[in-house]
Amino acid sequence: MDSPQVLNGMNAPRAAWPLVLAILLPLAYALVAPAAEPTPAPEAVAGQLRDAALAGHDVAYSWVSELTTRFGPRPAGSASEQHAAEWAAARLKALGFDNVHIESFPITAWVRGSESGSLVAPSAQPLVIAALGESPPTPATGVEGDVVIFRSLQDLVAAPGNSLSGKIAMVTQRMVRTQDGAGYGDAVAARTDGPKEAAQRGAVAFMLRSVGTDSHRMAHTGTTRYVDARVPVPSFALSNPDADQLERIAALGQIPRVHLFSGASYLTGAHSQNVIADVKGTTRAAEVVLLAAHMDSWDQGTGAIDDGTGTAIVVAAAKLMRDLPHRPRRTVRVVLVGSEEIAQPNAPFGDFGGNAYAASHLSELPEHVLAGESDLGADRIYSLALPASVAHGEFALATDRLLTPIGVLPAARPAEDGGADVGPLAKAGVPLFSMNQDATRYFDIHHTPDDTLDKVDRAQLDQNVAAWAAFIWLAADSDVDFRTPAAPRS
Amino acid sequence: MDSPQVLNGMNAPRAAWPLVLAILLPLAYALVAPAAEPTPAPEAVAGQLRDAALAGHDVAYSWVSELTTRFGPRPAGSASEQHAAEWAAARLKALGFDNVHIESFPITAWVRGSESGSLVAPSAQPLVIAALGESPPTPATGVEGDVVIFRSLQDLVAAPGNSLSGKIAMVTQRMVRTQDGAGYGDAVAARTDGPKEAAQRGAVAFMLRSVGTDSHRMAHTGTTRYVDARVPVPSFALSNPDADQLERIAALGQIPRVHLFSGASYLTGAHSQNVIADVKGTTRAAEVVLLAAHMDSWDQGTGAIDDGTGTAIVVAAAKLMRDLPHRPRRTVRVVLVGSEEIAQPNAPFGDFGGNAYAASHLSELPEHVLAGESDLGADRIYSLALPASVAHGEFALATDRLLTPIGVLPAARPAEDGGADVGPLAKAGVPLFSMNQDATRYFDIHHTPDDTLDKVDRAQLDQNVAAWAAFIWLAADSDVDFRTPAAPRS
Repeated sequence: MDSPQVLNGMNAPRAAWPLVLAILLPLAYALVAPAAEPTPAPEAVAGQLRDAALAGHDVAYSWVSELTTRFGPRPAGSASEQHAAEWAAARLKALGFDNVHIESFPITAWVRGSESGSLVAPSAQPLVIAALGESPPTPATGVEGDVVIFRSLQDLVAAPGNSLSGKIAMVTQRMVRTQDGAGYGDAVAARTDGPKEAAQRGAVAFMLRSVGTDSHRMAHTGTTRYVDARVPVPSFALSNPDADQLERIAALGQIPRVHLFSGASYLTGAHSQNVIADVKGTTRAAEVVLLAAHMDSWDQGTGAIDDGTGTAIVVAAAKLMRDLPHRPRRTVRVVLVGSEEIAQPNAPFGDFGGNAYAASHLSELPEHVLAGESDLGADRIYSLALPASVAHGEFALATDRLLTPIGVLPAARPAEDGGADVGPLAKAGVPLFSMNQDATRYFDIHHTPDDTLDKVDRAQLDQNVAAWAAFIWLAADSDVDFRTPAAPRS
Repeated sequence: MDSPQVLNGMNAPRAAWPLVLAILLPLAYALVAPAAEPTPAPEAVAGQLRDAALAGHDVAYSWVSELTTRFGPRPAGSASEQHAAEWAAARLKALGFDNVHIESFPITAWVRGSESGSLVAPSAQPLVIAALGESPPTPATGVEGDVVIFRSLQDLVAAPGNSLSGKIAMVTQRMVRTQDGAGYGDAVAARTDGPKEAAQRGAVAFMLRSVGTDSHRMAHTGTTRYVDARVPVPSFALSNPDADQLERIAALGQIPRVHLFSGASYLTGAHSQNVIADVKGTTRAAEVVLLAAHMDSWDQGTGAIDDGTGTAIVVAAAKLMRDLPHRPRRTVRVVLVGSEEIAQPNAPFGDFGGNAYAASHLSELPEHVLAGESDLGADRIYSLALPASVAHGEFALATDRLLTPIGVLPAARPAEDGGADVGPLAKAGVPLFSMNQDATRYFDIHHTPDDTLDKVDRAQLDQNVAAWAAFIWLAADSDVDFRTPAAPRS
């Protein structure tokens, strides 16, 4: 179909891109590109990378398939996490990346033991539970107590001191399903702060409705918060149907009494590791555009969507660049981070990968020009948040031209402080971007045994790779300063 | 909207029912009803029951909610099954049923113990498994072996004798999703016959891909078949994602080696029980129209859709009749059967409820005029299979008039030999009907921990009750002979 015809039709704004680009490209890139650059214009190359990814580049799916099949769960500090890192480094070398190496750092690992939960009154029923990450074990005979149900963390906080003596506190707050995962932030406070609040009121254990949006017999684990260098009481997530069941028993006027056991332990002297791989830049090789995702996973699933796909997306995007006949001006660095899942400030159980990278590369961070992470599954990217410095201007317009055709719109707000992989970089002043993934179904699966390869939608995975590859090329093969605050809009 | 107008429109065939009924009812019922019956015409009453159920009669949902909440799983022979039966009998009395009583029968119960499965090579990974019902325990140290994968039971059967010595045989055949659940019958042969075929070839254990249509980390248990009064080897279902994982490992050229443990046991001297409740008939009270469903459930879930909803549907349908100001001619009998899940011919572990009922009521069976069971979840009924004797005639036309408006069409074939609850009645010559439920999603959940109340769709549950109540009234408040073979169609 010819463009002039299309311009009369419904699809004019999008289908007319080739024409518009032919007019605008030289104008746009006059602002950022040296006049006599021998390689193709960055936006044109970025478009080629995008289209190659969409056509079904196999690197991403093969990566996440092999990673999850060969190693299964990869808990922080485990042999499995280490073996996966060694495999990743070997594979990245084979893919032709530069500067491939592993950087280890010490941690204390948390190891799930056998565990069980059951209702003992008013009738005997098994419960599907999972100890929260870093939760201490119960005594060998378990803990047993009547359950006191709170509809929210706020209700638990409002309970008087010692009112839960000998009881098991339970928070049944529901997570709200949203496209951007915002419901997680609201609900997860019960997981991070519940154990402390329960313990302060005398409870012998803490339980919560899983922070998740599904209705399956899957308990969503996740880390909880330390108080004085320990998690104060054994703490567990209940599957959502089990939380419903306890609420219904209470609604019948009966008091649920529960027995909980966890044989969790801590492994001191363990280590985790980050895997680094570069596509080395040309004229600005010391400047780094950093792509992060994490290699470790929770122990119940195989870490397919959290975060095997994230590692697959950033590796596949960088591999597309690596296979071009020329290099970008700046270095593109893939950092596959270890020990992300236990990331929290001042954890007594050792460091996490994002922090370890920032600490060991501190002197280089002033030349880290831009960073982002992929850690919200592999469903399609619907928006891109740029650093505030470039949120309005030619760079933003170029990203719009590249990404709107694949459904990626400008985000409502500039990128903020990032996740655990790049958050420490942001604190050190590195500008962040955020490729916002559709998280509508992510928290159905997140941190459960159900995080397995079959949940990956290959077409959406490819769309992620396309968006990352196009955007990263645009940023890396440029001189754009992402760090300098933007002038106020006129 | 007036009928004459409607007759000109698209909806004429359905919206014109009131008019058509006013003309046809007296004609239709002249065939089956005594001329001077003081109660309303059966078809009119049946329509009232249907509409009352659709309007949201609360009995069914309350029943399944309380049953599953108060008692959780109800394995055959367990205290939980017995307590649930006692509760059901008390509730049926409170609802005003006649002749409410419990009939016990002896069984040997199978009791799941602790159990675990793990990949031990080429890497250590946990597996989600469930021992098959009646499977013997492993030795205390478990069994371990290299896995030999067969794509189908036929492939296993084709393997030479002793070719599996010391190995673990695994069948990975996939179940096909169908509206009528026909895929189950095709796939379940691997579960019933796999252990025997594996043992005959020297295998130390048997595993199969779950007979289920989901992709969750849930193993679908279910009973397997005895050979010489025992299940020959420890036998397990793997969740579908775990079966995928072992297939992918094999596809990488590696041999999966697996460790399995089950502490299952048998409990001799146990008993199960059927719960009986009647709406006593008037002029033909000795004639019984029997509605069955089963009270026991597998132990992993709470038996909500298998078969809490079945019991709820038949109880609620009968309760609607009980609350009418008049009684049907024939007796409507609800039989809530125990120990259905281990039903199989000549099981050495004792009887099952359908058999026990048929045996203890043998002399009455000639006057059991019709029987059906509800045991395929609670999604909507899409067709009704009548006994062949009445598949073509006025009774069939009356059911069409009653049920087409709620989406229930005539089934393609007459009702056949029924499930485990009413199958023994069919063998004794009792005519069967089948209310065919939409089983499209049933086998996502069937026999897993996920069989919980949240899976019940209340609107579809109400539609089931409406169809049962209307049809059963039509059959019970009539003189129709369902037993005499129909004359050949001219």
